[in-house]
Amino acid sequence: RTQTGPIRLAVIPGDGIGTEVVAEGLKALDATGVKYEPTNYDLGAARYNRTGETLPDSALAEIAEHEAILLGAIGDPSVPPGVLERDLLLRLRFELDHYVNLRPVKLYPGVSTPLADVRPEDLDIVVVREGTEGPYAGAGGAMRRGTPYEIATQESLNTAYGVERVVRYAFEKAATRPRHKLTLVHKTNVLTYAGDLWARTVERLRSEFPQVETDYVHVDAATMFFVNATRRFDVVVTDNLFGDILTDLGAAVAGGIGLAASGNVNPARTTPSMFEPVHGSAPDIAGQGKADPTATILSVAMLLDHLGHGEAAARVEDAVAADLLSRQGAGATRSTRRIGDDIAARVAG
Amino acid sequence: RTQTGPIRLAVIPGDGIGTEVVAEGLKALDATGVKYEPTNYDLGAARYNRTGETLPDSALAEIAEHEAILLGAIGDPSVPPGVLERDLLLRLRFELDHYVNLRPVKLYPGVSTPLADVRPEDLDIVVVREGTEGPYAGAGGAMRRGTPYEIATQESLNTAYGVERVVRYAFEKAATRPRHKLTLVHKTNVLTYAGDLWARTVERLRSEFPQVETDYVHVDAATMFFVNATRRFDVVVTDNLFGDILTDLGAAVAGGIGLAASGNVNPARTTPSMFEPVHGSAPDIAGQGKADPTATILSVAMLLDHLGHGEAAARVEDAVAADLLSRQGAGATRSTRRIGDDIAARVAG
Ligand SMILES: CC(C)[C@H](C(=O)O)[C@@H](O)C(=O)O
Ligand SMILES: CC(C)[C@H](C(=O)O)[C@@H](O)C(=O)O
Repeated sequence: RTQTGPIRLAVIPGDGIGTEVVAEGLKALDATGVKYEPTNYDLGAARYNRTGETLPDSALAEIAEHEAILLGAIGDPSVPPGVLERDLLLRLRFELDHYVNLRPVKLYPGVSTPLADVRPEDLDIVVVREGTEGPYAGAGGAMRRGTPYEIATQESLNTAYGVERVVRYAFEKAATRPRHKLTLVHKTNVLTYAGDLWARTVERLRSEFPQVETDYVHVDAATMFFVNATRRFDVVVTDNLFGDILTDLGAAVAGGIGLAASGNVNPARTTPSMFEPVHGSAPDIAGQGKADPTATILSVAMLLDHLGHGEAAARVEDAVAADLLSRQGAGATRSTRRIGDDIAARVAG
Repeated sequence: RTQTGPIRLAVIPGDGIGTEVVAEGLKALDATGVKYEPTNYDLGAARYNRTGETLPDSALAEIAEHEAILLGAIGDPSVPPGVLERDLLLRLRFELDHYVNLRPVKLYPGVSTPLADVRPEDLDIVVVREGTEGPYAGAGGAMRRGTPYEIATQESLNTAYGVERVVRYAFEKAATRPRHKLTLVHKTNVLTYAGDLWARTVERLRSEFPQVETDYVHVDAATMFFVNATRRFDVVVTDNLFGDILTDLGAAVAGGIGLAASGNVNPARTTPSMFEPVHGSAPDIAGQGKADPTATILSVAMLLDHLGHGEAAARVEDAVAADLLSRQGAGATRSTRRIGDDIAARVAG
């Protein structure tokens, strides 16, 4: 479904390198000629340190009125761990019901991987990570904190509703890809209650997708196969935490976190989906023009694709692919802005 | 503390390739000349399928009277996921209070790794995985199972008692190693209650180990560094589930699951510690003499070391190292038994 009129885009640059990479993402978007109206939301560590606010309800309500969100990165060492992650980033994912966290793990030609024997044709995986429940639910607590008798709990909440919708999406995704293969990753032999729900759900939906071959791999074994048997995977569906882990590993094997894009998607489109690089705010290199904006630019391609601008999306991805190929054997590393300019120029064509 | 008299050794070959690799482990042990008295425990899938028993209390009580346990592998597709894992393998770890799950991730010279640029000097990590609590506690349940309203929970239970003792062990381990570095791996920004307990515990014990440098890495980033920055790590301490995941990944980067040894250790020595390869029962290759017994033989070295037979342990490890070096560029792959014979000859030799 193609949108008509300019895309109403909420932009959350966030912290650290977030601002830098988002600027380049928007440059690529400009270059497509697709019209959009950006609204900037100044959320993140600076705002929190200044006002104590993470995500005011009014900001959430406004953001929810947009057609899509582009987010840079959230997090800073000046803020205690979890505050911005839970109250801003995860809150956006949860409140906007981004139940599909879509993360391609793809080796582009010309990109060097730490794996000795892997070629682009060996590594083209889509991880469909559940985005709204599981161990990310925030359920848990601590008792007798700070004493020798402290107990701290953390609960994974899994619902048939939540698991079925993401598994269904993953089946649909697998059905559109040449290999038609869907692998469930979990730890059914230890996390028996949650694992059983996931495994039964895949089993049950199989009959609706007879063309899709299904497979199961324990999460520990899956990390092995991500480095020594990448061809085993086509589409992977997994829970929020296992998906978090596997996609960082996937980013590393596909050439580094600087290239890994993601979409927090509500396939029902009742709320704006949110696109963001997998990497964090990298405070150590912030403000130095050293960050690679490629992951954000690829996230913009996913955004365009989600909104029905398939042709523009393909142009952005092709421009990135060409830029990545040109890096091969190239001497000097380019600045964030220079990479953004070069890719935008290719998009504009 | 060196044992006097023969080691009273409980042997649990288990399922699939378990029997095959344990035989070779015992061969290496024989070759050291260290005296031991083995008692075989026929536990695993066959026993379960025949009698419905996983770990009868009487067997557990007998096993507990030994000085150490050598275990092959547990698990078979004929048994529903979780039954043998929870009621046999994890039950042994829990009942015998194996709170340290010690897993070296070490690249031996001559072993090929999937990582292009990693040499043996880049990869020498010890993962200290908590073994008795966390997400492995088995806490959780399901409600309205099989309906669209099902909810399945899985709870991670972390206690100050449980976390402190394993963190202390990891500090002690780090203090004995040349680099003196300890990295906590967790997901403190999302699993805030459990993460906070782990982080505070490391922080608190630091003052007791001023010579140890400490560091923190999120589990998702840790999987990246396991493939693209292995030198970051010396000793890693982490929870039961993250440790499970990281050590399979570690096995893959260190040359494959066929080489990864482990010890389920109760450092207080009030119960027998249990040594086992990290790999599973591999039903697909069982009975064919294809399994690599090296992981089990290295686990025997850990067992000897744990019981104070440091010299014999070193001889076994050296024999394995020499055997691994001899594999380089070698043509034909040897059978399980042949590898065991060759290593035993070097140990004796
Ligand atoms: C920042 C953090 C909360 C987040 C997550 O764990 O989902 C990040 O690691 C990611 O993968 O997007
Ligand atoms: C078999 C399974 C229960 C076990 C675990 O998860 O601990 C295994 O993966 C391991 O790492 O020893």
